[in-house]
Amino acid sequence: MIDENFDEFNPELAEKGAGGELHQHEHRQSVINRLARIEGHVRAIKRMVEEDTPCPDVLVQIGAVRSALSSAGRLILEDHLQSCMVEAAKEGDYHQALRDLKNSLDKFID
Amino acid sequence: MIDENFDEFNPELAEKGAGGELHQHEHRQSVINRLARIEGHVRAIKRMVEEDTPCPDVLVQIGAVRSALSSAGRLILEDHLQSCMVEAAKEGDYHQALRDLKNSLDKFID
Repeated sequence: MIDENFDEFNPELAEKGAGGELHQHEHRQSVINRLARIEGHVRAIKRMVEEDTPCPDVLVQIGAVRSALSSAGRLILEDHLQSCMVEAAKEGDYHQALRDLKNSLDKFID
Repeated sequence: MIDENFDEFNPELAEKGAGGELHQHEHRQSVINRLARIEGHVRAIKRMVEEDTPCPDVLVQIGAVRSALSSAGRLILEDHLQSCMVEAAKEGDYHQALRDLKNSLDKFID
């Protein structure tokens, strides 16, 4: 699920990336915009079904939304590793944060 | 992607299932309802990101929406095999319909 462009976890880079301020989510606005587009895309697919668009065309669009959701999720994960996990490490909560992340990844990555 | 409850293609059953009328989509309304719920779910996830909900919780919800989309897609596929493909076979368009379906499945099943 994680493609080859996904950077390895590097706390030093993460701190620089956030310009000294931790717990910043670099892709926060991009994720919000993507989710807004995905919401519109799902609404359009519902309309396709209501208008009896050929099933194969509907399936292609459902696949596209699923891919878009995966991409948005990858950005959230990237931000999480670059900021929240670094902050947790600094505060001594890294192991708990890692347990939380692993639990959610079991559900995110199928 | 297709689970064990997915019925095998059976044109005879399909004809009976549609009560004599072909090109009926048994799950049409269910698919529309599911897509409406998915749309609301995506909107709720966008709100979670706007409200800075912990990333692992957001990832779990994205995984849930992706699963819901797959389920809706499976219902569309089931209806397609039970009605559109049967109709195509009767009209002598089965091979073209099969080509269209295979192309879309390449995009739907990743």
